[in-house]
Amino acid sequence: MDTLVNPGESVDDLGNGYKIIQGASLFRFGQDAVLLSAFAKAKKGELVLDLCTGNGIVPILMCARYKHGVYEGLELLPESVVLAKRSVILNGLENKINITEGDVMGADRLYAPASFDVITANPPYMNKDGGIANPGMAEAIARHELKMTLEGLIAASSKLLRFGGRFYMVHRPRRLADIFYYMRAYKIEPKTLRLVCPKAGRAPDLALISGTRGANSFLRVLPELVIYNADGSYTDEVRKIYYG
Amino acid sequence: MDTLVNPGESVDDLGNGYKIIQGASLFRFGQDAVLLSAFAKAKKGELVLDLCTGNGIVPILMCARYKHGVYEGLELLPESVVLAKRSVILNGLENKINITEGDVMGADRLYAPASFDVITANPPYMNKDGGIANPGMAEAIARHELKMTLEGLIAASSKLLRFGGRFYMVHRPRRLADIFYYMRAYKIEPKTLRLVCPKAGRAPDLALISGTRGANSFLRVLPELVIYNADGSYTDEVRKIYYG
Repeated sequence: MDTLVNPGESVDDLGNGYKIIQGASLFRFGQDAVLLSAFAKAKKGELVLDLCTGNGIVPILMCARYKHGVYEGLELLPESVVLAKRSVILNGLENKINITEGDVMGADRLYAPASFDVITANPPYMNKDGGIANPGMAEAIARHELKMTLEGLIAASSKLLRFGGRFYMVHRPRRLADIFYYMRAYKIEPKTLRLVCPKAGRAPDLALISGTRGANSFLRVLPELVIYNADGSYTDEVRKIYYG
Repeated sequence: MDTLVNPGESVDDLGNGYKIIQGASLFRFGQDAVLLSAFAKAKKGELVLDLCTGNGIVPILMCARYKHGVYEGLELLPESVVLAKRSVILNGLENKINITEGDVMGADRLYAPASFDVITANPPYMNKDGGIANPGMAEAIARHELKMTLEGLIAASSKLLRFGGRFYMVHRPRRLADIFYYMRAYKIEPKTLRLVCPKAGRAPDLALISGTRGANSFLRVLPELVIYNADGSYTDEVRKIYYG
C-alpha cells in the first residue's frame, strides 16, 4: 500500500473504516464535505455524481455511510484526481467509485443526459470578486470560482439528473439567492434548506440545499444545524454525523 | 372618539402610545406584522408604501417605532380600509399615513413609477392549492392568495420602488425559493434573510426578507430570531421588539 502515498502527503483515518490521502498544500477536505455527505442520501442501486470531487472525500464518506450507491467523481485538477484515485484504491472501493478528470462546466458532454439519480456538489465558494485568490494556482482553482460558475454547475446538473433525481449542495449562505434562482431557472426545484451555524444564536456560515429535478414548488426549511455547544464541544447531532 | 369604533369592534392598545381598531371576525394583526415593522426601516423623509396593509397595523407600528417616514397603505378589502382609516384618525396620524383602497396587482397603475423609497408587505400566505379557504370571503381574501400572487406583488413593487429603494417582506419559509426567484427576476436583489422560529432548535415558521432595487448579488443571512425561551416566556430580543 505504501506506493499509494507519496512523500509530503498524509493518510487520514475517516473514523468509519476508510482513509483519505491528502496533499500537504492542496485543498484538504473540510467540515462542509462531511456535512454534505450526511445531508445527501443515496438509495440502493442509485448512480451518484459528485461534482468538484477534489480528493474524493464526498463519495468515500457516502460509501461508508449508506453502504450502497455507485459513485462517479468529477474533478478538474489533475493533482486532486490522482489523490482521489489513490484513496479509492487504498479503501478497496474500485467497484463503487470511479474518478474522472474533467471540467464541471462541460460535464453535460462527458455523460449521457438524465443519466444520474443523484448529484452532489461542494463547489469552490468564492466568486471572482468575492475574495483574494490563494497563492498557488491549484489551490486558487479549488477554492474559487475561477473555472466554474454556480450557474454553469447547476445548468450541467439539470441536464445530467433524471426527472425526479435529487441534487444536494453545500455552499455559503450569502449565495442562497443565486442558488435558488438558478435552481428554479434550470428546473431543479429547491426542496430543503438547512442552515449551519457555529454556535446557537450566531449567523449561519454554511447552507445545505437539496432540490429535485422537475418537482413542484415547496421548500422545507429544517431546524438550524448547530456545530458547537457553548463550551466548544460538538453538539450531539454533529458528534453523530462525525462518529456515527 | 367613540364614533370611530363600531359595535363588535375592539380597540387594542399597541403599547407604544398608539391604538388599533380591529374587527371581531376580520383578519386581526399578528406577530408577523409586529416583526415586519421592526425589521423594516424608514429614514427621515422617506416615502413608504405598505402593500396588503389590512387594518393599517404595519404603518402605525412603524410610525411609533421610527418617528419619521410618510406612509401610504394599500388594501383591497373595503372593510379593512375603513378600519385602517379610522385607526389612523384615532391616533391622530392623518398627516403621516394615508390609506388607499385598491388592488396590489394593479398598484403600478395607482402610483407613479419609482415613487417610493421603501415598500413593506405582509401578504396573505396560502397559495391557491396550499390550504383550505376560511369561511367568509373577506377573511379568505385576507388570508389567501386568491386575488394576489407573489409574483404580481413583487412585479408591482419593482415598478414602484426607486433605484436603490428597499423592499421588506414577511412570509412563510416554504415560499423562500419563490420569493428569491421573483425578487431576482424583477431586479429587487435579496439582501438580508432572517428566519424566525418559535423555539431554539425548531424549524422556522416565518421568514423576514429584505431586498434592494438594482443592487448587486450578496445575501446576508442573520442569526435566527427565536420567539420563546424554553420556559415559554418571550426571549429578550422579542420582548424588546414588543415593548421597546
